[in-house]
Amino acid sequence: MAKILRIDMSSLEHKWEDIPSKYETYAGRALTSAIVHDEVEPTCHPLRAGNKLVVSPGLLAGTLAPSSGRLSFGAKSPLTGGIKEANAGGLTGTRLARIGVRGIVLEGIPDTKDDWYSIVVGKDKCEIKKTNEYAGIGAYELIGKIWKEYDSKPGIVGCGITGQKLLMGSGIFGNNIENSDPGRYAGRGGLGAVLGSKRVVAIISDDTDGERPEPKDEEKFSEGRKAMVKALNEHPVTGKLKDDEGNAFGALKNYGTNVLMNILNEGGGLPAFGFSRGRSDVAAKISGEAVHELVDKVKEKFGDKTPATYGHPCHPGCIMACSNVVPYEDTGKLQVSPLEYESAWALGTNLGIDSLHDVAELNRLCNDLGLDTIETGNAIAMLMEGGVIEYGDGKGAIKALEKAYGDDTLLGKLVSSGAQTVGQTLGVTRIPVVKGQALPAYDPRPIRGIGVTYATSTMGADHTAGYTIAAEILGIKGDVSDPRGLKKADLSRTFQATTAYIDSSGYCLFIAFAILDDDDGFQGMVDTVNAYLGKDIDVTQYGLETLKKERSFNKGAGFSKEDDRLPEFFKKEPLPPHNVTFDVSEEELDKVYEGM
Amino acid sequence: MAKILRIDMSSLEHKWEDIPSKYETYAGRALTSAIVHDEVEPTCHPLRAGNKLVVSPGLLAGTLAPSSGRLSFGAKSPLTGGIKEANAGGLTGTRLARIGVRGIVLEGIPDTKDDWYSIVVGKDKCEIKKTNEYAGIGAYELIGKIWKEYDSKPGIVGCGITGQKLLMGSGIFGNNIENSDPGRYAGRGGLGAVLGSKRVVAIISDDTDGERPEPKDEEKFSEGRKAMVKALNEHPVTGKLKDDEGNAFGALKNYGTNVLMNILNEGGGLPAFGFSRGRSDVAAKISGEAVHELVDKVKEKFGDKTPATYGHPCHPGCIMACSNVVPYEDTGKLQVSPLEYESAWALGTNLGIDSLHDVAELNRLCNDLGLDTIETGNAIAMLMEGGVIEYGDGKGAIKALEKAYGDDTLLGKLVSSGAQTVGQTLGVTRIPVVKGQALPAYDPRPIRGIGVTYATSTMGADHTAGYTIAAEILGIKGDVSDPRGLKKADLSRTFQATTAYIDSSGYCLFIAFAILDDDDGFQGMVDTVNAYLGKDIDVTQYGLETLKKERSFNKGAGFSKEDDRLPEFFKKEPLPPHNVTFDVSEEELDKVYEGM
Repeated sequence: MAKILRIDMSSLEHKWEDIPSKYETYAGRALTSAIVHDEVEPTCHPLRAGNKLVVSPGLLAGTLAPSSGRLSFGAKSPLTGGIKEANAGGLTGTRLARIGVRGIVLEGIPDTKDDWYSIVVGKDKCEIKKTNEYAGIGAYELIGKIWKEYDSKPGIVGCGITGQKLLMGSGIFGNNIENSDPGRYAGRGGLGAVLGSKRVVAIISDDTDGERPEPKDEEKFSEGRKAMVKALNEHPVTGKLKDDEGNAFGALKNYGTNVLMNILNEGGGLPAFGFSRGRSDVAAKISGEAVHELVDKVKEKFGDKTPATYGHPCHPGCIMACSNVVPYEDTGKLQVSPLEYESAWALGTNLGIDSLHDVAELNRLCNDLGLDTIETGNAIAMLMEGGVIEYGDGKGAIKALEKAYGDDTLLGKLVSSGAQTVGQTLGVTRIPVVKGQALPAYDPRPIRGIGVTYATSTMGADHTAGYTIAAEILGIKGDVSDPRGLKKADLSRTFQATTAYIDSSGYCLFIAFAILDDDDGFQGMVDTVNAYLGKDIDVTQYGLETLKKERSFNKGAGFSKEDDRLPEFFKKEPLPPHNVTFDVSEEELDKVYEGM
Repeated sequence: MAKILRIDMSSLEHKWEDIPSKYETYAGRALTSAIVHDEVEPTCHPLRAGNKLVVSPGLLAGTLAPSSGRLSFGAKSPLTGGIKEANAGGLTGTRLARIGVRGIVLEGIPDTKDDWYSIVVGKDKCEIKKTNEYAGIGAYELIGKIWKEYDSKPGIVGCGITGQKLLMGSGIFGNNIENSDPGRYAGRGGLGAVLGSKRVVAIISDDTDGERPEPKDEEKFSEGRKAMVKALNEHPVTGKLKDDEGNAFGALKNYGTNVLMNILNEGGGLPAFGFSRGRSDVAAKISGEAVHELVDKVKEKFGDKTPATYGHPCHPGCIMACSNVVPYEDTGKLQVSPLEYESAWALGTNLGIDSLHDVAELNRLCNDLGLDTIETGNAIAMLMEGGVIEYGDGKGAIKALEKAYGDDTLLGKLVSSGAQTVGQTLGVTRIPVVKGQALPAYDPRPIRGIGVTYATSTMGADHTAGYTIAAEILGIKGDVSDPRGLKKADLSRTFQATTAYIDSSGYCLFIAFAILDDDDGFQGMVDTVNAYLGKDIDVTQYGLETLKKERSFNKGAGFSKEDDRLPEFFKKEPLPPHNVTFDVSEEELDKVYEGM
């Protein structure tokens, strides 16, 4: 029977709790948001003892369901001041699921300014260890150290140097399957700082003696699983690496999420130079296609001697396997793995930086420092808007980010503190944030639905909270014949609710590309979840239940409908090349959560 | 007939407007808040074209009423995101009143990144001049330059270097009567940045051919005026410089507002070392008494050759004359004039800096740079909490502040950006702000009523918004036999409403010390206002009317009752020496504006 592990960092004690019946069907985001809603005072300071960091593998993590091993983190966000859930792949989700840990609740703060801890979780055991040697070093080094200490190749999640300094741009890293690099990021909302505030550097999970969680209804589960596998494998976005003629086929496997770069650029919705343009020459040079070409070149040169390939899974059991890598041409070694679309955009197109290796280096630095690439890319853009660095100056951006290692410069602190802080400090009046969180890689002016999600999401600006891009750009389900944006509220609400469900199931959000286009696949998702629980739950209702708790927390934290707005400049400054502004009315925005 | 001068900085055009009948009784804060409420979109970006800066002399400015020449500034605040009114003395209030200007509405933003303007207002005339030579220089030099250019010794208000850089800690300065130094500050809420965003460096007012505004009912006005003069002159706080035996008497005239330093220290409510203690050895060394002693010493040494005296008025016609100066011992020249209690606290006790001349230098730098001393003192405290400077390091603080002149360091930008930005950038979790604005010189833990004002004021943390200190510490009117703070909501509401009235009348808030203790004096205030208008208005109703508009604006800007709270640490960390926490309940806080 799965348990909740409650760890009090004030007393350095832990206890195992049964899952209360009210949380019976909850896991992933549903569980993290429910516990934060039920146990955290919404007006508490997010980096003081009253906040709690909740970690929870999705419901199906560790099972045979495909691509279902995501891990959620939840807390009050120091960046937005509201509730936050961020999830990622990596090893930890399935490790925890296999040892029966449905959730970890990290509460309190130890009475020390000197000591740092790590938490080691195994089958029926938990140890809170003083590990000062883990603090103050880069995440690559840290993870390497831990994998040397523990034979079991444990899952590791943790905060980097910037989280330890309580800086708002910091995320929580997880280790890659194949190389243990810190490439898996629950990046958003400054959750790294929450972990750092608890004086915890790493949570290490060892699944020795663990076992696969079994569904209540094996047969139904198996049928559902097969339907999903079929849907995922056959869809042009999530499908196979090669088609029958041996040509490139599945978009994600071949090009990673960065396949979007050229598509968005073509559509004029790719934010460039700090959201001042919607198209840029930079795109092609750092796109998924460019990375693919580089990997091919390196493979050709080094053969088996390079780990450079595409089509990596981010967690055990993922069949979409959309992760790419950026190798060095001269050695075949990896510079960073992966380079996601959002990161390539935030650290590349957004900054006018067209050197793929500069962008990869910025990403590597973020991973090593414990920083969210989206927030940090936008923070660097604000440094550029404010004249501290020139747009396009990749080396300057790298130098700025390297300052974050030390304690001796304010530049290092600022660049780790998110776009809003940097922008305001420099007197910038075009700061792309909602609820204090920086915008991702889709300009809301030409792509209105994602703008509605940015504005109204409980999370601040967050594309994954309601990824209408699937419908608006990729043409996957949903009515997009809506030139004046009149139905964008419905579109966004549907995506937000479905997303909250998926974020709880353990499934990767990208299954949506396939199953929204394939009714059997969709039913497969529903069946696996219901078969696992032995209970039928409604996708939308389940999602809305979580969204309601999140809205309620945010209301208690002081948010009102006036916070469900985009920054003024999106309404006032037309975006080239199409010269459109964000023209969804406030009434329409308020419709998304009307009555909730 | 008084007029409103509307200046559109987008077109560089102006027009004179009659005062609309709905604003008939409005001036000062009532007028600035009404216009901001009626004309500014609450969700607009405070530093973009949609914001307006409104300037308005109090109703009785320029009349024979004593101490009635205050000048209000209003806008949406870049620091709080809500409405803001800040007022100050100086020459401009009476200058504008004498040429019939009830208000100036500055709107739009010129389409230039190069040019800076000044606005010259005279009797029936207004000129918008391109004066690039006024930008980028210290306020002392700027004001000296303007007084040389204009024979009439004009009133000058403006933004310093930091306002021109759009930084959130910047205020609006005004020139002193006696030496034209930029010692008169409408400091709070970043209004200097709003003026800077309009590309206006200075507003110059020349009252040549102006005349004294006459009350509708001269006789009643004259009676009221006499009652007030008597009340002010006879009260131990606001009264005469010497008593009949020639000894020191009036507290404000002799020691300035800084007479409070030792009183608050004695009471254990003087915030020290970043709101971590309520008492400090520093106090006596930088108190009003210490300044008085220094002035006496310098007067004795230099006689008529030094301008050092106490008892200066901050505007023409002020009979309380509470301004002091800090002279240099070796030359008799002035280091800064004045050194107010709030500044001495913010830049002294708050930082553990016990050198009077270091504190005076920090104040002089703030004045020259265009910075609010309260916000900047708290920002420096955050630099100290974050380990950038040591507590007590006066020279280090001076060095940090000097960085704000240049464009080459982030330290200079940060220190000019307010306490919240600095604190968050450095990972500080004890940041003393409400609605983003830093707390003034009274710790809310032992002095609960002022805590209620800080929490609930429309202005963010602001002692002048409802100065319950008068009752709580100085024993002036009001029931303070209220150990559990149960009646603090009533106390604060009464003070907030009366204050909104006084801030509109042109009277200095300090008249309250005397008239709250003297029914005839209070009636004198009411009579002068009513006689001037030829119309009876109710003090509380008038005040509440303004507060309601301000609350309504703030609601539109996204504020809810959860924003009417003090930072968590005031509730959790007991303050030595009395070891009390802020224990006024949220229910009690919400009572202040219940139903409004």
